[in-house]
Amino acid sequence: LTSGRTLDTNASFLAGELRRLGGRVDEIRSLPDHLPVLIRTIRELARGRQLLILTGGLGPTEDDRTRHALALAAGKPLRLHPPSLTAIEERFRRSGRTMTANNRTQAMFPASSSPLPNARGTAPGIRMRLGSCRLLAFPGVPHEMKAMWESSSLPLSRELGRRALRLRRLHVFGLTESEVDRRMHPLMLPGRDPEVGLTVQDSVITVTLTSASRTRIARDETLLRRLLGRALFGTDGESLAVVVARLLGRRRQTLALAESATGGLISHLLTEVPGASRILLESRTVYTEGAKRRLGVPAALLRKHGTVSEPVTRALASRIRQVSGSTWGLAATGVAGPSGGSQTLPVGTCFLALAGPEGVRVAQPIFTGDRSQVKRRAALSALDLLRLSSGG
Amino acid sequence: LTSGRTLDTNASFLAGELRRLGGRVDEIRSLPDHLPVLIRTIRELARGRQLLILTGGLGPTEDDRTRHALALAAGKPLRLHPPSLTAIEERFRRSGRTMTANNRTQAMFPASSSPLPNARGTAPGIRMRLGSCRLLAFPGVPHEMKAMWESSSLPLSRELGRRALRLRRLHVFGLTESEVDRRMHPLMLPGRDPEVGLTVQDSVITVTLTSASRTRIARDETLLRRLLGRALFGTDGESLAVVVARLLGRRRQTLALAESATGGLISHLLTEVPGASRILLESRTVYTEGAKRRLGVPAALLRKHGTVSEPVTRALASRIRQVSGSTWGLAATGVAGPSGGSQTLPVGTCFLALAGPEGVRVAQPIFTGDRSQVKRRAALSALDLLRLSSGG
Repeated sequence: LTSGRTLDTNASFLAGELRRLGGRVDEIRSLPDHLPVLIRTIRELARGRQLLILTGGLGPTEDDRTRHALALAAGKPLRLHPPSLTAIEERFRRSGRTMTANNRTQAMFPASSSPLPNARGTAPGIRMRLGSCRLLAFPGVPHEMKAMWESSSLPLSRELGRRALRLRRLHVFGLTESEVDRRMHPLMLPGRDPEVGLTVQDSVITVTLTSASRTRIARDETLLRRLLGRALFGTDGESLAVVVARLLGRRRQTLALAESATGGLISHLLTEVPGASRILLESRTVYTEGAKRRLGVPAALLRKHGTVSEPVTRALASRIRQVSGSTWGLAATGVAGPSGGSQTLPVGTCFLALAGPEGVRVAQPIFTGDRSQVKRRAALSALDLLRLSSGG
Repeated sequence: LTSGRTLDTNASFLAGELRRLGGRVDEIRSLPDHLPVLIRTIRELARGRQLLILTGGLGPTEDDRTRHALALAAGKPLRLHPPSLTAIEERFRRSGRTMTANNRTQAMFPASSSPLPNARGTAPGIRMRLGSCRLLAFPGVPHEMKAMWESSSLPLSRELGRRALRLRRLHVFGLTESEVDRRMHPLMLPGRDPEVGLTVQDSVITVTLTSASRTRIARDETLLRRLLGRALFGTDGESLAVVVARLLGRRRQTLALAESATGGLISHLLTEVPGASRILLESRTVYTEGAKRRLGVPAALLRKHGTVSEPVTRALASRIRQVSGSTWGLAATGVAGPSGGSQTLPVGTCFLALAGPEGVRVAQPIFTGDRSQVKRRAALSALDLLRLSSGG
């Protein structure tokens, strides 16, 4: 597996996917835009391997050199593929943009290779062989690459003819990495099947079980569910927002938000979920005192306790619930930083309030990190408060 | 340069940084959590090289093996570093979390190495030598790694004693990649100094000029500014939100948002900018018809034209401006998908409206991509409409 040029999430995505198919990744390399290096490396990496995947370098510009490198590495000329040209022209026509001469290059392919259609962008991929090695070249844009991978992975898995590994991911919120690690200790013996891995991103901890046996994965999942309890919120890529939207949807409950510290992020995360309009009645980013007063928080309350305080956050949650007529009202205030902190309210201090049919619940976490992280952690904690209160 | 375990944005960030220091990256590798492979690879890569950087594998869990691998590769024992232990304990105390026994491992270092303080997380980094090669091990969490890199890069650059390259990045919005490429053609001759590169992320195109000569970069920047015109919105990592916040701040203007299709994303992007509270008076995610009516959009208008329409979007922009008393009112409606599209309003259709002191401006773009991309492109286009209207 070689990643030409862009070395971002593509390489780790493909490595995970190949692993799932029972493959083993020998090497990942990042290459410069230099044609002789590209040709030499493609030849070297293809030798003795079953599969070489390249990403990036298929765009229309001068420094997109993957197609030339592949042609030269294989000693084949580049030829125009008329159906691909038509598809590119059609795409430009539909979006109303003007096609330039260099987009035409994207319809050129090394002789005896096949184009891989790209439903999401202009650059088709390339499939070919170099000796006994299969070569796949995908565009570098992650979502285009992923969509093309989806459509080429099934036949690939058949061709490679390995025994597929199963992966199960369990997502955890509200525990530290060390705490999750401690609880999982019985499962982490070396050489054990399933293999257990642990990664963290944005305060969400993911436990990955890998095995060829569905039964063993199910057995360990049952054990983990007991060890992790309600901190385990979802599986296989589900976000907290997806889980919360599903919970509320099932119970025909609705939500309204009053976001100060989180600045619209909770609303953004929820509206990433298709169908969010059925549960999110309204959300206000009430950054200023004026906006808080317009929502109906009494000026006296703001004066007495200050914006970042439990009483004001309670009032925000209750008011937005009342105004929108939703089942739940969720509010977040805090000091996101970098400035604005004080002795009593250091940067990272947040108040979260959830108003519901049975009153208001409040949490007062303190987050570390920069402005962007404080916002993100506060937003996820607010969603988690809602999840736990609505029975998730 | 070797990236142990996490191979995401870290490798490309470090490659760019080393390049800036005049270094040349020989190789980037992604390694498994397997101790013998780690030891063998560290030894192999250190041979004959000046610098080897590892990221990841410094956490508290079983599969974090970088510190053991480094100790074994150098043939040194691991020793407890009391000041690091105190710093880790202090960090846990401050955040109110419980420290577990395995966090103590994070204060262990190979003999004759030095710890690199980590202000943003529990895991300190490691600096040591293996023969004539300098080794740096950073945590895999991108923001921790970046902060530690900042504080170790200056002495490193002095030690390596190379001639530093300068990088200048120019960010463009509203043109296709092909169009930018076409306009830049005179600058893209092979062997030319500065070297010119082009990348795209989320519809923002970045042109990077690289040269040892400040004068040559300045000359090309002047040329590019003429070729790209007002589509060039910022430099060196500035986001559209940062540029818009600065423009409004300078003119003491304010903004209010009524977001339907963008679901809170414009608000989220603006509140990522420190000091956003001075310009963003209020933002409402008016996802439902009820929320639109509560903002004062007449029910008759909604009935006659439908939610996703020019008149309703105009009304949203005007109303939010009026209600909050802001200089500008910005509104976005549209069909983000995956469902909800029709013959007349296919998925991706958006209406953007900007109400200002001189009336309302409207745009009706159609975006391609999935729900998340349509949201993102609509949010950036809305910010760009505001930038161009407020003189950016």
